[in-house]
Amino acid sequence: METRIMLPQADLPTQWYNIQADLGRPCPPPLHPVTKQICTPADLAPIFGMELLKQEVSQDRWIDIPEELQDIYRLWRPTPMQRARRLEKLLDTPAKIYFKNESVSPAGSHKPNSAVAQVYYNKQQGIKRLTTETGAGQWGSSLAMACNLFGLECVIYMVKCSYNQKPYRRILMETWQGKVIPSPSPFTASGRKILAENPDHPGTLGVAISEAVEDALSREDTRYTLGSVLNHVILHQTIIGLEAKKQMELAGDYPDVVIGCVGGGSNFSGFAFPFLQDKLTGKQTKTRFVAVEPAACPTMTRGKYTWDYGDTAKSGAPIAKMHTLGHTFVPDAIHAGGLRYHGNSPLLSLILDMGLVEPKAYNQKACFEAAVQFARTECILPAPESSHALRAAVDEALRCKAEGRAETIVFNLSGHGHFDLNAYESYLTGKMEDVPFDDAKLQAALNQCPEVDSNLCGGF
Amino acid sequence: METRIMLPQADLPTQWYNIQADLGRPCPPPLHPVTKQICTPADLAPIFGMELLKQEVSQDRWIDIPEELQDIYRLWRPTPMQRARRLEKLLDTPAKIYFKNESVSPAGSHKPNSAVAQVYYNKQQGIKRLTTETGAGQWGSSLAMACNLFGLECVIYMVKCSYNQKPYRRILMETWQGKVIPSPSPFTASGRKILAENPDHPGTLGVAISEAVEDALSREDTRYTLGSVLNHVILHQTIIGLEAKKQMELAGDYPDVVIGCVGGGSNFSGFAFPFLQDKLTGKQTKTRFVAVEPAACPTMTRGKYTWDYGDTAKSGAPIAKMHTLGHTFVPDAIHAGGLRYHGNSPLLSLILDMGLVEPKAYNQKACFEAAVQFARTECILPAPESSHALRAAVDEALRCKAEGRAETIVFNLSGHGHFDLNAYESYLTGKMEDVPFDDAKLQAALNQCPEVDSNLCGGF
Repeated sequence: METRIMLPQADLPTQWYNIQADLGRPCPPPLHPVTKQICTPADLAPIFGMELLKQEVSQDRWIDIPEELQDIYRLWRPTPMQRARRLEKLLDTPAKIYFKNESVSPAGSHKPNSAVAQVYYNKQQGIKRLTTETGAGQWGSSLAMACNLFGLECVIYMVKCSYNQKPYRRILMETWQGKVIPSPSPFTASGRKILAENPDHPGTLGVAISEAVEDALSREDTRYTLGSVLNHVILHQTIIGLEAKKQMELAGDYPDVVIGCVGGGSNFSGFAFPFLQDKLTGKQTKTRFVAVEPAACPTMTRGKYTWDYGDTAKSGAPIAKMHTLGHTFVPDAIHAGGLRYHGNSPLLSLILDMGLVEPKAYNQKACFEAAVQFARTECILPAPESSHALRAAVDEALRCKAEGRAETIVFNLSGHGHFDLNAYESYLTGKMEDVPFDDAKLQAALNQCPEVDSNLCGGF
Repeated sequence: METRIMLPQADLPTQWYNIQADLGRPCPPPLHPVTKQICTPADLAPIFGMELLKQEVSQDRWIDIPEELQDIYRLWRPTPMQRARRLEKLLDTPAKIYFKNESVSPAGSHKPNSAVAQVYYNKQQGIKRLTTETGAGQWGSSLAMACNLFGLECVIYMVKCSYNQKPYRRILMETWQGKVIPSPSPFTASGRKILAENPDHPGTLGVAISEAVEDALSREDTRYTLGSVLNHVILHQTIIGLEAKKQMELAGDYPDVVIGCVGGGSNFSGFAFPFLQDKLTGKQTKTRFVAVEPAACPTMTRGKYTWDYGDTAKSGAPIAKMHTLGHTFVPDAIHAGGLRYHGNSPLLSLILDMGLVEPKAYNQKACFEAAVQFARTECILPAPESSHALRAAVDEALRCKAEGRAETIVFNLSGHGHFDLNAYESYLTGKMEDVPFDDAKLQAALNQCPEVDSNLCGGF
């Protein structure tokens, strides 16, 4: 009985898919955080690599994956598509459940798919050094791994409380020669300012972004990188969905439901967009797309589709039109640290606005219930983030059971939980809590979204 | 460029290989620890599952893998055989380096290959509950995973200092519904005896074995399991080498050197024996076999091939003829906890005695140097145990460079180091020490080996 559908190495996709070519509606451009005018390449070139900025606005449907990058992808790709037969049996569902297993990458998640591409293009341009921020450490470790492969220096501003509480991810980054700096740090003006006010500041992702951008702007040989949200990150992640489509074809099947979890939006989008192309082009009309977020950070289900700052400090990242909770919104400290972004990908937000994707929110206890079911049937321990997608897959399978429908459900297992076992312990010992959502906090944060003159932003 | 050689799921081996059929010399049998006579099935049946005891003494060359077990193997098998091109480039060697990647199992090592088989056969026999001991936790987590799959209760006596220092492995076992008990415990006579003398006793593997065996002997529905050393464990692990042979055939290559690390001997043997069959039957004569151990626990390079007790407490495990340091030998606390057994597999010991395998010992700093090189080229973080095999592979590749020979080197990457990052930190920060070997300690321990009457033990 075939359990894992393996794609031969020779069938690794050689092009990424750019959904902008098939949408029929343009993606709203980024605005300068100070002038609130459409960002020019000159605005962004000191922050991001040039080729990545070109990919950001490209309308080409297919973009070639350089051969050197394909060779690196082959270190762990194609990843398996796996049939979750034991989970199906436990749920006693007529549905078929498949998952794409992105946890097999050396960093343990889908993040390296874009990290290696971003480092590759920056290196082509002569950049010697890359900065980024990290919270839980999935993106930071992926960028460290990628920089190490290409011989670039990697500087990671890690939220100080995570730096102290999660030494394993830090050591992983250091093993790959990443330079990990607890943020706020004394090495940037924004860090020094915060430390002057409070030397024991625990740090936030917003502060770490400010430091990483400031660092990149201060040196000619340095650029900043982002692990989600942006169009080029989603582009690189479409390798997941492109492989998945080939694997479903090998299985002689096609999804009725495609599911992924959403923080910034790149793993969901990378997995779903190649299937969504079939819907946009009329090849397959039956498929539903479900994007899952934590109830503690409900950008898609409770946020507003409007212009907002990309970072808390409004210091460097552009203003984007997106589903947002407001850039001052601080989500409760759930275990799925990778899903705690106040905003969302502008491209995915547009697609949500077009009604092509159904958003869904779950509390973390429901997600961990599914994660433990999965660990006890399929043996793999999902990352807290991925368990959101899993929870939705389980609920779809239970719906199929109630309706007596043998649908095909596919979800993206974006990463493993080897570095999140404290979260499992919290769940298993009954200590995990679901904190009620604070509506007043949301309203206050939404009021902080900037006013934007529609004449300056291109009429979006 | 093909990097990973994937074997299709349909090509999963359907039989294990039993080298006893090809050796031409019988393996010395286990002796009763009190009478020092050859163990009868009646001696061992209360401890081990019956089918496993049959496999232990079988002389059949091939033993069928039940279909239900094949289905479970397919959750993660066949595992990839990978060409380490980036490591080759770093070493600037004409040699080709391949590694079998056993780290992709859900428990992170090769251990589940035997765990699922042992649970399967015990369940067939009607056993409801299995006990074992664990130090670092690789075997314990694999048995918990396997028991969970088959619905058996799993009781793991975990060395108390590891229980306190390595909560992640414990939580992993608990997620798979394993019952983890810090040893010494108040639940067994041997545990109570030790606690009465010293309530703060940190525990040892020897004590934990005594507790696990005593527990199994105290209940009709319970048996004990062992994660290495025994013939049936090696038998199950031959699936590694059988897959590897097919993969080398797909690559159009054949190894000049086959390398694995040795604690109890099961991962090395499982990987090497299918290749060794070709040597024993004259099909391939060129191949060398290198078994690697830590210099802190040098059973093969410094131990004596003689009769010795299997556990420190002499309380339940049989006496075996093996390469041993003496059952009272306590190795220094190296990070490769899985390689700290005072003895060795009797079957591998016999093969060492026949001169078919070259033993080699390394200090841990040299192993971590190679592990970090590997992490920085192939991206995967090896387990401290596996880094011993890796170190030998690197040294063979450097020898090939010096000699200008393009040999083919294959080694078994038996597991990943995701739960061993403290060891990496110790190495990266320069805090790791190589403790000089204590010859006097070895001599004292060797003097504790029992005298055995050759008339009682079958003349071995």
